[in-house]
Amino acid sequence: MLRVATRDEAVREMEAAMRMGARFIAQGEPDYPKPLQAADSSPPMICVRGDASILSRPAVAMVGSRNASAAGLTFTGRLARELGDAGFAVISGLARGIDTAAHKAALGTGTVAVLAGGQDRIYPAQNAPLLERIVAEGGAAISEMPMGWEPRSRDFPRRNRIVSGVSLGIVVVEAARRSGSLITARFAGEQGREVFAVPGSPLDPRAEGTNDLIREGATLCASADHIVAALAPLIDIDWTERLSVSEPDDRRIETLWEELDFLSFGEPIRPAPTAVLPDDAAQDLPSGEADDIRSRLLSLLGPSPIGVDDLVRQADVPVRAVQMVLLELELAGRLDRHGGNAVSLVG
Amino acid sequence: MLRVATRDEAVREMEAAMRMGARFIAQGEPDYPKPLQAADSSPPMICVRGDASILSRPAVAMVGSRNASAAGLTFTGRLARELGDAGFAVISGLARGIDTAAHKAALGTGTVAVLAGGQDRIYPAQNAPLLERIVAEGGAAISEMPMGWEPRSRDFPRRNRIVSGVSLGIVVVEAARRSGSLITARFAGEQGREVFAVPGSPLDPRAEGTNDLIREGATLCASADHIVAALAPLIDIDWTERLSVSEPDDRRIETLWEELDFLSFGEPIRPAPTAVLPDDAAQDLPSGEADDIRSRLLSLLGPSPIGVDDLVRQADVPVRAVQMVLLELELAGRLDRHGGNAVSLVG
Repeated sequence: MLRVATRDEAVREMEAAMRMGARFIAQGEPDYPKPLQAADSSPPMICVRGDASILSRPAVAMVGSRNASAAGLTFTGRLARELGDAGFAVISGLARGIDTAAHKAALGTGTVAVLAGGQDRIYPAQNAPLLERIVAEGGAAISEMPMGWEPRSRDFPRRNRIVSGVSLGIVVVEAARRSGSLITARFAGEQGREVFAVPGSPLDPRAEGTNDLIREGATLCASADHIVAALAPLIDIDWTERLSVSEPDDRRIETLWEELDFLSFGEPIRPAPTAVLPDDAAQDLPSGEADDIRSRLLSLLGPSPIGVDDLVRQADVPVRAVQMVLLELELAGRLDRHGGNAVSLVG
Repeated sequence: MLRVATRDEAVREMEAAMRMGARFIAQGEPDYPKPLQAADSSPPMICVRGDASILSRPAVAMVGSRNASAAGLTFTGRLARELGDAGFAVISGLARGIDTAAHKAALGTGTVAVLAGGQDRIYPAQNAPLLERIVAEGGAAISEMPMGWEPRSRDFPRRNRIVSGVSLGIVVVEAARRSGSLITARFAGEQGREVFAVPGSPLDPRAEGTNDLIREGATLCASADHIVAALAPLIDIDWTERLSVSEPDDRRIETLWEELDFLSFGEPIRPAPTAVLPDDAAQDLPSGEADDIRSRLLSLLGPSPIGVDDLVRQADVPVRAVQMVLLELELAGRLDRHGGNAVSLVG
């Protein structure tokens, strides 16, 4: 339910942002990231905390599993450091696992966290101190959501289009099949971004998604050189030639979701104009069937891995609905994926 | 030094082969493998022990490191079993590591070992019992070399063109950079064979070669399905259309070696006509400088890994010569490669 914000609401919003050192940047303003503005469905306005000038540097996004392996985390750190040394800003989503490792390794050279909630609603809370370091050490935090907005599951895929939107390319480090990182990679491909994937042993379920991406045409990335070589020709691109001043194209994103064979229930995923505040985030939950399915699955899930097939059978709901809910939970960092197509709730 | 065999020598050769249940098959005979006959530089005659009819089945070659990881060996076994179940004969070189795992897993469905020496000179000796099982369980052993021929280092790359030559495609499972398996893969590509490579973590030196192959265009293989899907359209190919009755094209192979940036010293790698016996295998060693370099390197190498750079420095010989000797040793199963571009002699 959208409505135009009142003048008072807008003023309160800007004051709240200023109090925590954040400011709003609208499309067309010089500090608005050029690659993002050239992307379909870019947010009309973003709220930036930290040094906005980092957004004018060439950027690479790094994404991957939350429950990453030691090898995945080690490689992420090495890659982020080398990309930083090569002059790239490292973009990620502040999630645990790969995101955290990427941000940490790029603190010294500059890194950007893209948030799913408002600037004052950090998720996961355990990474709030990391975000403070990111901002203190020349990096930034970006959000398209209003102050005070608690991130819901469905805000994470939306957020991910900004992660890739501000970047020249995106690297998927470890990703199970049907994982959120793959969705991000496909959005990135739709946006015309270079997609890189880090390979892994066929015996490692956390490499299934990235190996699939490579078979589908993503560039195999085994070192920073592979990324630097591919992106070098893009650094001096004239984004103004690609700028679109048209309205955000919601239909494009909805179509992509359809193609991905996921059930899109509730409201369509679309950029929420930052200056337009929903009445109440709590009222914004999808109603009826979707809620029903979500709560039924949540009660069936626990910390022990269960096969998705078993879950579908026991929940007695359509496979696509189950997959959509699992994806939401995973993007929100509440679901872990295991080998043999099994899942469990985090903690 | 080649000379035409006398009639007596040819008769003795055929009698020796018959005594161990082997027979010679010449190009143009019905049992000569069609894909091999269509390949450049195919041997005019091969000696086959076991059930030659397996050579008329569609075949996949599996190659990789001798010092393979547990994961590499496990995946090799799974892949070979699945390829066998899908109707493919599994071809390999009877070496330890990946070759051994592939042969063992495909015993029940049929597997073919291609030898670098004569049928009565099995290398490595420890795999002689495995070869007996291969032959006893419906598989076969192929060699283009005369009876009594002790395999020299330089016979292994030559042998490898037969491994890929009888196959529709070749899978490289684990391979370090600059390893013999990569040479085999490139020969296979030159022969027009499908090249598959199994990916691995960028942190695993044993995956560097296969990841490179994928970046260069080889098909990423993470399951047997990936191979079966790619090769299915080739199974009913009419090889007679591709048959070449021209002389083996030695120049092609020599050129390939040059392209590979390895020093080709001693005699050029060319198919040795089986019916033509060298006077004495011992006289056939390359003379002068090459021998000198080889013995100098052998005295410097031991069971402890040493960096190739250090080896070059201490041997004070050209890098390309060192690489060539190392490759020979590796193909002969006498050299292990380790991370950080280090090598050691096999126990």
